[in-house]
Amino acid sequence: MTRSELVHQIFSKQSYLLVGLDTDHSKLPIHLQSHPDAIFEFNKAIIDATKDYCVGYKINTAFYEAEGVKGWEAMEKTVNYIPLTHFKIADAKRGDIGNTSALYAKAFFETLNFDAVTVAPYMGGDSIKPFLEYKNKWTIVLGLTSNEGSADFEMQKTIRQHENLVEGIHTIQSHISYLYETVLEKTSGWGNDENLMFVVGATKADAFTNIRKLTPNHFYLVPGVGAQGGSLQEISEKAIIKDCGLLVAASRAIIYASNGDDFAGAAAGVAKNYAHEMSLYLQAFKS
Amino acid sequence: MTRSELVHQIFSKQSYLLVGLDTDHSKLPIHLQSHPDAIFEFNKAIIDATKDYCVGYKINTAFYEAEGVKGWEAMEKTVNYIPLTHFKIADAKRGDIGNTSALYAKAFFETLNFDAVTVAPYMGGDSIKPFLEYKNKWTIVLGLTSNEGSADFEMQKTIRQHENLVEGIHTIQSHISYLYETVLEKTSGWGNDENLMFVVGATKADAFTNIRKLTPNHFYLVPGVGAQGGSLQEISEKAIIKDCGLLVAASRAIIYASNGDDFAGAAAGVAKNYAHEMSLYLQAFKS
Repeated sequence: MTRSELVHQIFSKQSYLLVGLDTDHSKLPIHLQSHPDAIFEFNKAIIDATKDYCVGYKINTAFYEAEGVKGWEAMEKTVNYIPLTHFKIADAKRGDIGNTSALYAKAFFETLNFDAVTVAPYMGGDSIKPFLEYKNKWTIVLGLTSNEGSADFEMQKTIRQHENLVEGIHTIQSHISYLYETVLEKTSGWGNDENLMFVVGATKADAFTNIRKLTPNHFYLVPGVGAQGGSLQEISEKAIIKDCGLLVAASRAIIYASNGDDFAGAAAGVAKNYAHEMSLYLQAFKS
Repeated sequence: MTRSELVHQIFSKQSYLLVGLDTDHSKLPIHLQSHPDAIFEFNKAIIDATKDYCVGYKINTAFYEAEGVKGWEAMEKTVNYIPLTHFKIADAKRGDIGNTSALYAKAFFETLNFDAVTVAPYMGGDSIKPFLEYKNKWTIVLGLTSNEGSADFEMQKTIRQHENLVEGIHTIQSHISYLYETVLEKTSGWGNDENLMFVVGATKADAFTNIRKLTPNHFYLVPGVGAQGGSLQEISEKAIIKDCGLLVAASRAIIYASNGDDFAGAAAGVAKNYAHEMSLYLQAFKS
């Protein structure tokens, strides 16, 4: 999916919501738990109920891998069931040496027909570039994540050196930045805002203004609204740009809105509320 | 598998070799390519041929995921086929927020019966700790990796601050270290040398002496010997400790030693040579 196709979806629906299919067998409604294909049945009902309010789905691979081969089957069926109009993200956080990253890219972009995959930056350029080689696919690099542990390394102070030419003299300037800022800056140069996004956690609203300055035109994948407590209003006000530039994912708050027979209707209700709130922020930006 | 069980395997075989099952369907011997279960058949033959010369197997999940559900099935069968005496590593480089990392840990330690899984540190403590909660299982955190991209972030200079009490006065001392050193130091505190190892690439021999100083008692998983060009001799001389402390993985150099009918015998030959060389380094350390 190209950026203009994604943006068209966002403005025609007035929503930048992603529904996170973090489908955990043990949390399914009782009447589904004994179904031989419970996870897929649940996802199907959630997709049918929410597709008018969201622009895409984010599949967290851990939930499927925990179920082994059966889970991987459910993931494959789910990706194939999502309408072609919707953006499909594998939230997989992969990354390895070049020849291995190329195979992860194949797994998610060819074997499974995802539009995007999340990637961990620790191993550097050759672990990220193989994903960027796919046309009309997106690589979503971890920037500043929503969890407490983001303080451990992402917020680690780093020293960066730039060579400058000042009045004909080469000088080296050092400045201090957080590791996640270094990641945003360096990674931006490996792709562009048509094939690269960043994960920025909704719980880090304080950092959004600064992050928007560093990467003014990139889309962000923003998890952490809902169960993790991030404020949709605050991050929207700080980071919306002309063509939106935001995809906000809510998982547990939507898919587990009810654990009874009415789970799909309840999920639709929550998704609709998010979409309504998002339409207000999109309109507020425009005016 | 406990550390003492692993060490017993190493000294009884006089080998600290891991065979990397980076099994790529397109590189299999012609006579196997049309087999309905080609990847597993290949792995089975490699395991039978090499098990006397190695202490374990490292399964790179990307190669299996690229094949979709069929690949995941082949991975499951392969793990179950590896003898109980052998250490089984999922080279998966996972890592996510706490509740998601807990599911990756379940996927590799419960659903699949691996002894260890490789984990990416970027997201910090709560992304690593769920793996460490499993008894007699190992978490192998990326330290300094073998690829060129390790220069991008792992070798980024960071500023670390320590609070010290000097003659009754609290002082803050800053020092500069590479990100990977910060990762080794901080992560060490979340586990211990009975449940935590580090990935250190064989191509980074220059750094091994320093890394051994920072983490004197930890085991290292060392990929990058063979196709990637790392020197087994150099890293062995720099990093072997009393109970060995090294697991060196070779993948392509062993499993693709021949692409003819004799592939298993050729793999055994290469594995045997590695094991012989390793026995010399173990004996040299002892004397």
